[in-house]
Amino acid sequence: MASQTEVRLTVGGERVTARDVTRGEAIDLKNRDPESLHDNMRIHFHDVFGEPDESVYSFDCVWTCAFRLFTNVKLWTYRIVSLLCGLPLAIYWGVYFAILSFCVIWCCEPYLKAFAIELGCVRRIFNTLLAAFYRPCAETIGYIFYNIRITRQ
Amino acid sequence: MASQTEVRLTVGGERVTARDVTRGEAIDLKNRDPESLHDNMRIHFHDVFGEPDESVYSFDCVWTCAFRLFTNVKLWTYRIVSLLCGLPLAIYWGVYFAILSFCVIWCCEPYLKAFAIELGCVRRIFNTLLAAFYRPCAETIGYIFYNIRITRQ
Amino acid sequence: MASQTEVRLTVGGERVTARDVTRGEAIDLKNRDPESLHDNMRIHFHDVFGEPDESVYSFDCVWTCAFRLFTNVKLWTYRIVSLLCGLPLAIYWGVYFAILSFCVIWCCEPYLKAFAIELGCVRRIFNTLLAAFYRPCAETIGYIFYNIRITRQ
Amino acid sequence: MASQTEVRLTVGGERVTARDVTRGEAIDLKNRDPESLHDNMRIHFHDVFGEPDESVYSFDCVWTCAFRLFTNVKLWTYRIVSLLCGLPLAIYWGVYFAILSFCVIWCCEPYLKAFAIELGCVRRIFNTLLAAFYRPCAETIGYIFYNIRITRQ
Amino acid sequence: MASQTEVRLTVGGERVTARDVTRGEAIDLKNRDPESLHDNMRIHFHDVFGEPDESVYSFDCVWTCAFRLFTNVKLWTYRIVSLLCGLPLAIYWGVYFAILSFCVIWCCEPYLKAFAIELGCVRRIFNTLLAAFYRPCAETIGYIFYNIRITRQ
Amino acid sequence: MASQTEVRLTVGGERVTARDVTRGEAIDLKNRDPESLHDNMRIHFHDVFGEPDESVYSFDCVWTCAFRLFTNVKLWTYRIVSLLCGLPLAIYWGVYFAILSFCVIWCCEPYLKAFAIELGCVRRIFNTLLAAFYRPCAETIGYIFYNIRITRQ
Amino acid sequence: MASQTEVRLTVGGERVTARDVTRGEAIDLKNRDPESLHDNMRIHFHDVFGEPDESVYSFDCVWTCAFRLFTNVKLWTYRIVSLLCGLPLAIYWGVYFAILSFCVIWCCEPYLKAFAIELGCVRRIFNTLLAAFYRPCAETIGYIFYNIRITRQ
Amino acid sequence: MASQTEVRLTVGGERVTARDVTRGEAIDLKNRDPESLHDNMRIHFHDVFGEPDESVYSFDCVWTCAFRLFTNVKLWTYRIVSLLCGLPLAIYWGVYFAILSFCVIWCCEPYLKAFAIELGCVRRIFNTLLAAFYRPCAETIGYIFYNIRITRQ
Amino acid sequence: MASQTEVRLTVGGERVTARDVTRGEAIDLKNRDPESLHDNMRIHFHDVFGEPDESVYSFDCVWTCAFRLFTNVKLWTYRIVSLLCGLPLAIYWGVYFAILSFCVIWCCEPYLKAFAIELGCVRRIFNTLLAAFYRPCAETIGYIFYNIRITRQ
Amino acid sequence: MASQTEVRLTVGGERVTARDVTRGEAIDLKNRDPESLHDNMRIHFHDVFGEPDESVYSFDCVWTCAFRLFTNVKLWTYRIVSLLCGLPLAIYWGVYFAILSFCVIWCCEPYLKAFAIELGCVRRIFNTLLAAFYRPCAETIGYIFYNIRITRQ
Amino acid sequence: MASQTEVRLTVGGERVTARDVTRGEAIDLKNRDPESLHDNMRIHFHDVFGEPDESVYSFDCVWTCAFRLFTNVKLWTYRIVSLLCGLPLAIYWGVYFAILSFCVIWCCEPYLKAFAIELGCVRRIFNTLLAAFYRPCAETIGYIFYNIRITRQ
Repeated sequence: MASQTEVRLTVGGERVTARDVTRGEAIDLKNRDPESLHDNMRIHFHDVFGEPDESVYSFDCVWTCAFRLFTNVKLWTYRIVSLLCGLPLAIYWGVYFAILSFCVIWCCEPYLKAFAIELGCVRRIFNTLLAAFYRPCAETIGYIFYNIRITRQ
Repeated sequence: MASQTEVRLTVGGERVTARDVTRGEAIDLKNRDPESLHDNMRIHFHDVFGEPDESVYSFDCVWTCAFRLFTNVKLWTYRIVSLLCGLPLAIYWGVYFAILSFCVIWCCEPYLKAFAIELGCVRRIFNTLLAAFYRPCAETIGYIFYNIRITRQ
Repeated sequence: MASQTEVRLTVGGERVTARDVTRGEAIDLKNRDPESLHDNMRIHFHDVFGEPDESVYSFDCVWTCAFRLFTNVKLWTYRIVSLLCGLPLAIYWGVYFAILSFCVIWCCEPYLKAFAIELGCVRRIFNTLLAAFYRPCAETIGYIFYNIRITRQ
Repeated sequence: MASQTEVRLTVGGERVTARDVTRGEAIDLKNRDPESLHDNMRIHFHDVFGEPDESVYSFDCVWTCAFRLFTNVKLWTYRIVSLLCGLPLAIYWGVYFAILSFCVIWCCEPYLKAFAIELGCVRRIFNTLLAAFYRPCAETIGYIFYNIRITRQ
Repeated sequence: MASQTEVRLTVGGERVTARDVTRGEAIDLKNRDPESLHDNMRIHFHDVFGEPDESVYSFDCVWTCAFRLFTNVKLWTYRIVSLLCGLPLAIYWGVYFAILSFCVIWCCEPYLKAFAIELGCVRRIFNTLLAAFYRPCAETIGYIFYNIRITRQ
Repeated sequence: MASQTEVRLTVGGERVTARDVTRGEAIDLKNRDPESLHDNMRIHFHDVFGEPDESVYSFDCVWTCAFRLFTNVKLWTYRIVSLLCGLPLAIYWGVYFAILSFCVIWCCEPYLKAFAIELGCVRRIFNTLLAAFYRPCAETIGYIFYNIRITRQ
Repeated sequence: MASQTEVRLTVGGERVTARDVTRGEAIDLKNRDPESLHDNMRIHFHDVFGEPDESVYSFDCVWTCAFRLFTNVKLWTYRIVSLLCGLPLAIYWGVYFAILSFCVIWCCEPYLKAFAIELGCVRRIFNTLLAAFYRPCAETIGYIFYNIRITRQ
Repeated sequence: MASQTEVRLTVGGERVTARDVTRGEAIDLKNRDPESLHDNMRIHFHDVFGEPDESVYSFDCVWTCAFRLFTNVKLWTYRIVSLLCGLPLAIYWGVYFAILSFCVIWCCEPYLKAFAIELGCVRRIFNTLLAAFYRPCAETIGYIFYNIRITRQ
Repeated sequence: MASQTEVRLTVGGERVTARDVTRGEAIDLKNRDPESLHDNMRIHFHDVFGEPDESVYSFDCVWTCAFRLFTNVKLWTYRIVSLLCGLPLAIYWGVYFAILSFCVIWCCEPYLKAFAIELGCVRRIFNTLLAAFYRPCAETIGYIFYNIRITRQ
Repeated sequence: MASQTEVRLTVGGERVTARDVTRGEAIDLKNRDPESLHDNMRIHFHDVFGEPDESVYSFDCVWTCAFRLFTNVKLWTYRIVSLLCGLPLAIYWGVYFAILSFCVIWCCEPYLKAFAIELGCVRRIFNTLLAAFYRPCAETIGYIFYNIRITRQ
Repeated sequence: MASQTEVRLTVGGERVTARDVTRGEAIDLKNRDPESLHDNMRIHFHDVFGEPDESVYSFDCVWTCAFRLFTNVKLWTYRIVSLLCGLPLAIYWGVYFAILSFCVIWCCEPYLKAFAIELGCVRRIFNTLLAAFYRPCAETIGYIFYNIRITRQ
């Protein structure tokens, strides 16, 4: 705003550099869901498996192995998949939300303003027509309900 | 209004020049949404991503990188897109709203006045017809509901 | 009314000349909408554009230029368009409203009077027919609702 | 009624001459709408045109000329059109209302009297038929609603 | 009733002659509508024409002439048309009402009496049939509404 | 009932002769409608014709002649038509009502008695069928309305 | 019941002869309708004919003759027709009612008893089916009306 | 039950003979309808015939003969028909009711017991299905009526 | 349960022999319907036949014979039919009820238990689907009834 | 759980042997339905057969034999059928319930957990769509019921 | 977070090893359903089989064998099936839930955020259109219910 000879370099009056925009601000690695977006995703072995009665008990070794296999397989599968696919998706969503913000701010909002003004004229014509033609019709048809007489005995 | 020999030069009694119409009046670069048009657009990393439980924690480095990538990519993408497309859109919307104002002021408003007068005549004919033909019909049909007798036991 | 030998020259008893009918009465150039016809047309830059959060701030120069371009382009476009098209439209609407007044005063109003008298006869015939044929039918059909007996337990 | 040898010459007992029936009674040239038939036709410049904001002000000369042109054109157009077409329409409506009065007085009214008598007979036949055939049907159908038992818990 | 040798000459015991049946009884020429049959036909110039505002005033001479022409033309047109067509219509309606009276008195009334007796028999057969067949059906269908139980919480 | 050798000669115990059955009993010639069958038939000149305003007054002679012609024509037309057609119609209606009485007394009444007995049997069969088949159906369908629970807030 | 050797000769214990079953019991010749079956058949001249106003009076002789003709013709027509057709009809209705009594007593009544027993079985099967299949359906469908919540403001 | 060597000879412990089962028990010949099955069959002459007014009296002899003929013909016709057809019908109905009793006692009743047990199983399957599939559907559809808000003004 | 070497010989711990299972327990021969299964089958002569009036009395001998024939024929027909068909039907129903008991105990009941478990899973899937898709739809449609405003005058 | 070298041999920590799993625990042979599953199956002779009146008593021997045959046949038929088919069915149902338990525990339950999570996402998309498109529609349609005005007389 | 040179080795700041993720934590082998997921699966012999009455008792040995067979077969079938199929299913569900968690966290949640913003714009356009076009229509149609007049007698 002050010296517009360096126009490309300021946002909100501060100089912009090509460095990391998070300024090294660390993310909390212990609590990774501060907005509680995914509380229904905390799933452990006993939320899924259960043998209710002695008559449907499998052998001890089967039950113990099933517990160990389910827990380990679920943990490592998630870690490997997120290692492979997590970062590309983070970039993709970054670009997506930037484009979306641009469209909403520079295109949709002005269009909505103009649209409201244009429909205001249409609405006045429409109301005049309705008041002239259809409201008398509707009121006339309504005289059908004019003569309801109830006799209680 | 005083000397109409200089007609092209006054608006509201002041001389018009070809200079900037904003008279150098600066825009506030810190608060760019004084009308609060876009409050639902303030989106950061934790509004979108979250890992709720230790059993679905990705590696620390994946989570930290995802945070940095998403934030930086979103920021710079918006800046570059607005740099490229912002100014043409500003011109486009300026022309659009000027044309729209002209049409509403010089064409729609007079037409709506004349339209209301013309429909006033049509409405009188229409009301006369309805009162003569359909209101007696409706009232007659309404005699169907004339004999409702309710016996409570 | 006094000397009808000069019939072409008086309206309401005053002589008519070919001079300007507004008699030089000046129009208020500061307040051009005394009837508040177009309050929803007062549109400035911040009614249309806004960037809500630092993460979606474009460069300062882009934002400042967009503000200047939008305001100037809108202003001058309206001025030029109204300079070109305003006066022919004023003449057109003058002729239109004069013709409309003539038609309503000399044609529609007498026709509506005669139409109301003619429909009065039709309405009497119509009422006689309805009272003879359809009202007994409707009342008879209404006996369907005659035997409603409600037993509460 | 006294001497019927001069039958063609009296109406209501007074002699009729071929002179003007208004007997020179002057019409009020200042207040030409004593019955307030056309109050919605009082339309001036500011009922139709308005520029609400400085950003949509046209040049002063355009606005002033538009005001003068609209007012003058509307006034003279009406005067010329009424000069050309007014008197033939007055004659037309005079003949129309005389014929209409004759038809209503000598044809419609007697016919409506006779029509009411004829329909009286039709109505008695119709009522007898309805009371014999349809009223028992309707009452019988109505027994559908006879056994409504409501249990409130 | 006394001497039936002169049967053709009495009505209600008085001798009938071929002279005028109104016995010279004069009709009131000033108040020609004692039953107020046509109150909506009193139409003068200002019930039909009106110029509401100075901006839609025609020239004085046009307005004055229109008033005189409308009033005179309407008056003389009615007088001439009634002179030509009034008397034949009076004769026509006299014959019409006499025939109508004869038909109603000698044909319709006796027929209506006999018709009511005949339909009385039909009605008894019809009622017996309905009471045997349709009333049990209707009551049985009505048991659909037997089990309405409303639970209010 | 006493001496049945003269069977043809008595009705209600009195001898029947071929003389006039009215025994010379005179009919009232002044009040010819003691049962008020035709009150809506009393129609005179002013029930049918009327000129409401001076501007629609016909010439005096036209109005006076119309009154005389309508009254005389209506009176004599009815007298002549009733002289020609009245007596044959009286005979026709006498025969018609006698035949009608015979049919009602000797045919319809016994048939209605027998018809009521026959339908009594049909009705019992019908009621048994309905009570066995359709009443359970209807009650079962009625359980649709069994669970209406209304929560008022 | 005592001596069944003379079986053909007794009814209710009394001997039956071929003589008149009415035992000479005379019928009342003055009051021939003790059960008031035909009160709406008492029709005389003034129940059918009437001339309401002097302007629709026929000649005295026409009115007097019409009265005499109607009364005499109606009386003698009925007497002659009943003389010709009365006795055969009396025999016909005697046979008809005897056959009807026999059918009702010996055929219809036993059949109705047996029919009621047979339908009793059908009804039990039907009720079992309905209670098993359709009542649960109907109650289930009825849960549609379970959530009616009314908010009054 | 005591000595089953004579099995064919006892019913309820008493010996059965081929003699008349009524044991000479006489039937009441005076009151032949102790259960009042046929009260609507008591029909005499005046329940069927009636002449309401002197103007519709037939000759005395016609009326007297009609009375005698109707009464005698009805009586003897019934006696002869019942003599011819009564006894075969009594035998037919005896066989019919015996067969009917056998079928109901030995076939229908056991079948109805077994049918009720079988349908009990079907009903449990059916109820389980309805509670699983249709009751949730119906309750869900019922949420349509959830938002009824009534504003009284 | 004690000595399973004689397994085929015990039921409930008692030895089974091939002798009569009723152990000579005699059945009550006087009261053969202790459960009152067939009260509507007690039909005698006067429940079926009746002659209401002396005018429809048949000859004494006809009435007496009809009584005797009906009673004897009905009694002996039933005895003979039950002698011929009773025992085979008793065997048939014995086998039928044994098979039915076996099917219900060994097949239906276990199947119903398993069926209820299987449908429990289906029901949970179904409820999840309905709560996700249809309940919001139904509630949304219900907003149609949201704006009911009643104005009482 | 302690020594997993013998994994195949423990369930719930106890060694498993191939011996009878019921450990010789005897079943109650007197009360074979402790859960009252089949109370409607207790059917004896008089629940099925009955002769209500002396007129429909079969011979004593028929009734006694029917009682003995029905009771013995039903008892032995059930015993023989259950001897032949009971044990294979017991094995079949044992296998069926084991497989059913396995499927429910290892397949259905995990699938239902995952299914609920997946539908949670679908539901959020669905609710957003409904709130944007259909709720405004429904509320707008609801304005039809906005103008209910009730006039009580 | 501290030393990102060992990035692959930490989750939540702790080093990750390839050892068992359950750390030898033993599972409770006695109570295998702590969340009570399968209470309806506790099925024993008497929940499925029952013989209600002595007349439907099978031989003692049949009943005892059925009890032993059902219990043993059900127990061993479940043990063998779970030994064969349990562990592969545990692995399958572990992979399935890991993939599901990844999709919900990295794909669905961001998409839902963006989707809600996009629909916000659509909703504003939609509401403007509805308010301009359909709300006046609906209110106009609602005037049909405007004239309800109830007369109580």
